[in-house]
Amino acid sequence: MALAVGFIGGTGPEGKGLAARFARAGLDVFIGSRAAERGAAAAAEVAAAAGGSVRGGSNADAAGAEVILVTVPFAGLEEALAPLSQALAGRVVVSTVAPLRVSGSRVGLIDVEAGSAAQEVQRLLPAARVVGAFQNLSAHKLMDLSQRLEGDVIVCSDDAAARAEVMALAQTLPGIRAINGGPLANSRFVEGITALLVSINRIHKAETHIRIVGI
Amino acid sequence: MALAVGFIGGTGPEGKGLAARFARAGLDVFIGSRAAERGAAAAAEVAAAAGGSVRGGSNADAAGAEVILVTVPFAGLEEALAPLSQALAGRVVVSTVAPLRVSGSRVGLIDVEAGSAAQEVQRLLPAARVVGAFQNLSAHKLMDLSQRLEGDVIVCSDDAAARAEVMALAQTLPGIRAINGGPLANSRFVEGITALLVSINRIHKAETHIRIVGI
Repeated sequence: MALAVGFIGGTGPEGKGLAARFARAGLDVFIGSRAAERGAAAAAEVAAAAGGSVRGGSNADAAGAEVILVTVPFAGLEEALAPLSQALAGRVVVSTVAPLRVSGSRVGLIDVEAGSAAQEVQRLLPAARVVGAFQNLSAHKLMDLSQRLEGDVIVCSDDAAARAEVMALAQTLPGIRAINGGPLANSRFVEGITALLVSINRIHKAETHIRIVGI
Repeated sequence: MALAVGFIGGTGPEGKGLAARFARAGLDVFIGSRAAERGAAAAAEVAAAAGGSVRGGSNADAAGAEVILVTVPFAGLEEALAPLSQALAGRVVVSTVAPLRVSGSRVGLIDVEAGSAAQEVQRLLPAARVVGAFQNLSAHKLMDLSQRLEGDVIVCSDDAAARAEVMALAQTLPGIRAINGGPLANSRFVEGITALLVSINRIHKAETHIRIVGI
C-alpha cells in the first residue's frame, strides 16, 4: 500500500497544492479540516484536478495517517493542534507553516516565542516527532499542475529517522530535492526564506523557489 | 578609472576573499584595518594571490572609496563604524555581516535589536546609504581562487540607487547573479540563510551557496 499522507487544515492553497502533488506521485492522501464536510469537499476538488487516491474529513481523521502535514495558518496552530496532542504522540508531524506578517509592501515574520512555527508545533505536540519542511514551496505553483516543480525542500528535525522519512516523502515530488537542514531550530531560517521569497516574488512578479548549490 | 572598493575590517577571510575576487575582476581595491600596517600587509597578500590593483591602510582610508564594504565581525561593528559616522555620511556602505552565534554543533543568529546586522550598520551610520549583500558567499570559497563561484547575491536596501550600484558590483564577479531582495529589513532573512548554510555545510561537508530559481 502507498504511504498515507494526512493534512491537518488542508483546505487552503498550500494544503490542496501539496495534496494534489502527492496524489499525482501515487501516495494516498487524506485532507483534514475542522469541519469534516469541508475536508471532504477539498478532497473531491483535488481528486478531480490531480486524480489518484484523495479522501477527506476531519483533522482527527487526518491524524491517523502515517505522515501528518500541518498546513494551518500560524494563527490557527493552537486551536488545530491542541486537541490532537494525544493522537499525535509519537507520530511524524511536518510543519509547513511560515509565520508571515504582511503589512503593505513589507513581508516579515511574526516573532514566535518558541523560535519558529515548527518549534511552536513541537511545543503544542510535545510527544510528536516534529519536522519542518515544504515552507518554501509556492502554493500557487503547487496548485498549478501544469507547472513542473523545481527547487530544494530543506528538512529540519531533532529526530533523525523522522527527518529521513520526510526527506524521502519530499523526493517523491518530481523536480524536488530534499536537503538535510539540521536541527528543528533551523526551521526559523527556512521560514525566513519564505518571507524573503514572497518579497522577491512581488518585486520580480515571479514564483520562486530556492536551490542549494555546492552539494 | 575602475570602480574603487574599500573594505572596513578587510583583513579576515571574508574581506580578503572578496578583495581578491574584485581585484581579479579589475576593480581598484583598498583593504582597511584598525591598524594601517595590518591593512597594508593584507593588501600585499591579496595582491600576490590575485594580482590587480590592491592597496591597504587604515579603515579611515578605506572609507574614501566609492563603495565601502563592511567585513567586520558583528561584535566589532560599533568600534569600527562609530568613528567613521561623519566620513561615511551619504556614502554607499555594504554590510556583508552575518551575526552568527556558534555553540557546539548549533549555528544560530545573535538577536540583533535593530533587526539584522545590516540594520545595525544603518543605526551606527544614520546618514549612510546602507545595503546588505554578500553575506551568503563562503569565505573559504572566495579565498580559493581556483574555484569558480556559483550562486546568487541577494541585495537589500531602502535606497534603490545604492541597491542598483551594489547589484552591478556583485555582477562583476564571474558566476554570481545579483537579486533585488527588497528593503534593508529583509537582510535579516539573508543573514539567516548564512546560518543555515553554515549548518548545511557541516552536515554535508561542503561549501554551499544559494540560487533563487524561477527568475
